[in-house]
Amino acid sequence: MTKDAPRIKALTFDVFGTVVDWRSSVIRECEALGKRKSVIRDWARFADEWRGGYAPAMDRVRKGELPWTNIDTLHRMVLDRLLTEFEIDGLTEEEKDDLNRAWHRLSPWPDSIRGIERLRTRYVVATLSNGNVSLLVDMAKNAGIVWDCILSSELAGHYKPDREVYLTAASLLGLQPGEVMMAAAHRDDLEAARSFGLGTAFISRPLEFGPEGKPDTASEGDFDIVAEDIIDLAEKLGA
Amino acid sequence: MTKDAPRIKALTFDVFGTVVDWRSSVIRECEALGKRKSVIRDWARFADEWRGGYAPAMDRVRKGELPWTNIDTLHRMVLDRLLTEFEIDGLTEEEKDDLNRAWHRLSPWPDSIRGIERLRTRYVVATLSNGNVSLLVDMAKNAGIVWDCILSSELAGHYKPDREVYLTAASLLGLQPGEVMMAAAHRDDLEAARSFGLGTAFISRPLEFGPEGKPDTASEGDFDIVAEDIIDLAEKLGA
Repeated sequence: MTKDAPRIKALTFDVFGTVVDWRSSVIRECEALGKRKSVIRDWARFADEWRGGYAPAMDRVRKGELPWTNIDTLHRMVLDRLLTEFEIDGLTEEEKDDLNRAWHRLSPWPDSIRGIERLRTRYVVATLSNGNVSLLVDMAKNAGIVWDCILSSELAGHYKPDREVYLTAASLLGLQPGEVMMAAAHRDDLEAARSFGLGTAFISRPLEFGPEGKPDTASEGDFDIVAEDIIDLAEKLGA
Repeated sequence: MTKDAPRIKALTFDVFGTVVDWRSSVIRECEALGKRKSVIRDWARFADEWRGGYAPAMDRVRKGELPWTNIDTLHRMVLDRLLTEFEIDGLTEEEKDDLNRAWHRLSPWPDSIRGIERLRTRYVVATLSNGNVSLLVDMAKNAGIVWDCILSSELAGHYKPDREVYLTAASLLGLQPGEVMMAAAHRDDLEAARSFGLGTAFISRPLEFGPEGKPDTASEGDFDIVAEDIIDLAEKLGA
């Protein structure tokens, strides 16, 4: 427990990668669709490129090149490009829409549900994701995750790591930034949160980008808390 | 079940009066404070006048006489006036703030938790209250109510029955207005929701304003569904 932990009243969680294993989930959905449509591709690369297109697409919104566009729409823009690049045709509009909603059905890491449940006994625990509200609602319902509140970049009209996202979250929770701790597997998210006054908890997710991936890592002292997973975070916060 | 019910994917609930019994809860908190401070007043009248000050205060925001002001602040403005009118002095700032937060601790009606739990098996179930997000989060946590999503007028920067509130809710849920059903014990809320294309469910709350109160009533056919309570609503929606 850090010296600041007694001030913390709420935790806000990054979701993609931190709470849910987007990569395995998307690969699984692509494989199932491929099987139904008799299409064989490198679905792991497809998933990685889909995810890879996400930050540049958000950056176009952050820089004002695109008006506010939610993640469902950005995912779909990237998907349409990848379907062309991977030479996958013959999907109906309904199939494309359903594939795009794979991001609404991502599976949690094994510790997520229990860890969040434990944290909720002592703290307000919310999402704080670039995913849109309906995506996060569907995901929670599908995965059986119970949140106290669904907070999203969508509510600020800005994407992380923009300042507005973190400060809107604290304000909606009726708290000072220093009473909120951001939990994420990504250093840039936590560094932004810290720069705006929030507490920070790093969650290690060594497999986020697959066995060959290069996930962020952190050493003790890099953030207020460095945890092995969400159950370990609950332990460290006395929940 | 109405003819439109198959289209409904989400229910949004009014909260004060519909899900929680604000009057008994506020009277109980006032009585407890009165006892601690040895102050005897007509706490039922105090609660009624506190609630009575709420709609006019919101209307000042709706008409633009006040900038956006959340319910915590409006409740506090009314409270400060009532403390003067009821000649209650000697409360510390901390005691006043705690009393104001009685609205974060309102108790649910006996059917609310179970009814919402049943509805959640089949629908997305969210709040759609004029209460601010943090108030609704605290209330749910305190009462043990599980929502799929906390939606509030605060997210639209407008109070019900303004159009923006209902349409923002549908949009955040990724749904058309006709796929959302508003549930409330108040005709004006439902009439507004209907005028903007939402489905409507009236929940009867005969004791909202106490044994002498004059609550809204509805007859079969006045709204898409007229229910005795939230469990009855779940029955009627096949959940």
